Amino acid sequence: MAAAGGGGGEGAELRLLGAWSSPWVTRVQVALGLKGLSYEYVEQDLTSKSDLLLKSNPVHKKVPVLIHGGREVCESLVILQYVDEAWAGTPLLPSDPYDRATARFWAAYVNDTFVPSWRALIWSTTDEQRAEAFKNAVPLVETLERAFRECSKGKAFFGGDDVGLVDVAPGSHLVWIGVVDEVVGARLLDKARFPGLAAWAERFLAVDAVKEVMPDAGKVMEQYKGFMAKWIASAS
Amino acid sequence: MAAAGGGGGEGAELRLLGAWSSPWVTRVQVALGLKGLSYEYVEQDLTSKSDLLLKSNPVHKKVPVLIHGGREVCESLVILQYVDEAWAGTPLLPSDPYDRATARFWAAYVNDTFVPSWRALIWSTTDEQRAEAFKNAVPLVETLERAFRECSKGKAFFGGDDVGLVDVAPGSHLVWIGVVDEVVGARLLDKARFPGLAAWAERFLAVDAVKEVMPDAGKVMEQYKGFMAKWIASAS
Repeated sequence: MAAAGGGGGEGAELRLLGAWSSPWVTRVQVALGLKGLSYEYVEQDLTSKSDLLLKSNPVHKKVPVLIHGGREVCESLVILQYVDEAWAGTPLLPSDPYDRATARFWAAYVNDTFVPSWRALIWSTTDEQRAEAFKNAVPLVETLERAFRECSKGKAFFGGDDVGLVDVAPGSHLVWIGVVDEVVGARLLDKARFPGLAAWAERFLAVDAVKEVMPDAGKVMEQYKGFMAKWIASAS
Repeated sequence: MAAAGGGGGEGAELRLLGAWSSPWVTRVQVALGLKGLSYEYVEQDLTSKSDLLLKSNPVHKKVPVLIHGGREVCESLVILQYVDEAWAGTPLLPSDPYDRATARFWAAYVNDTFVPSWRALIWSTTDEQRAEAFKNAVPLVETLERAFRECSKGKAFFGGDDVGLVDVAPGSHLVWIGVVDEVVGARLLDKARFPGLAAWAERFLAVDAVKEVMPDAGKVMEQYKGFMAKWIASAS
């Protein structure tokens, strides 16, 4: 098992329970990478949950779970803030209280508003459902485009010159967004319509700590097609 | 307009857009009270939203909104953390990163898991629906009872000796929980079943900063009955 290294944290054991295609897990992997921390990654089978997972996250029984020195931290946004507060190195949140509040607001918007709407697109099975779900998601992307302008203030990322909490929150979904786009035959982060976000997405995906942990689009497509086949079979 | 006072914050203007019976607003009022801050409270009519509210929270168009020196902070848990970081005085979150993560986890649990489930009880109109909603809410209260034991470590509050984030998150709903209990003819925080939470609730409601801002149970009952009458009329 790799010990936690780098940053300002203790050298206590650091393990991440994950599932390879989960954007929520990717978030944590990106954050750990940005902090320069090494950790043991433990893949979980979500169709048959391990005793370790059930014991580590008895409330939600979900990944990601970060286990640091034997103590569990659950829920991706909680973990990201924990990583930021437990280790020095590249900050994920700004230092000014108002800017921190703005970052938390947008991260919550991604979780509570954007992703649930976009998920309707993922699970659409007919062209009509897809058109409706796509139409409903577009105003939320417009809001994120405005958020990007306000947060980045002309810089590369929501976080300014460096990737931060609000970059990682939606950015971890980019491979899935691309895969769903391909299936739907549309482009959610359309360059002409959302120039800020489209360029941001390219920059985000080019960051080393992101590239190293983003799931492979071809494999995600394969998994998605498998999910959809089961979903359609169960619904018919 | 009252200027912000006390604590370590600037003396910038502090205004809170609220709605008198909203537990989400009560949370912020409790936090501002605990910090010893004075502010202008501006009641909002949610059936006819003001230009001020729409301009201050264009994304969600909801209360609470805290306006500090002309800058808006929205979403109750984001505001609580802002208040904690912008002003000194009684801390709402602990200082240790792991304890902070634990507090954020439970506050999110209240928002994302407990309240949505309990809300089904609020909107139930038949005895069968009520029994079902009550039955579904009980395991979540069991989880909160365990959380209380773990967080309080034998002390008075989730936050230890003093009220903190995890006290304010569910505590702001206590008047509503009592009103719904009365209508349903049951007791969600039953003393025999949940001794920790039941005693905690009594202590929480006796705190000065809480007593001063909790809505009147009789008025909440009146509003709830009005909501229900409309709800039943619209459903029939």
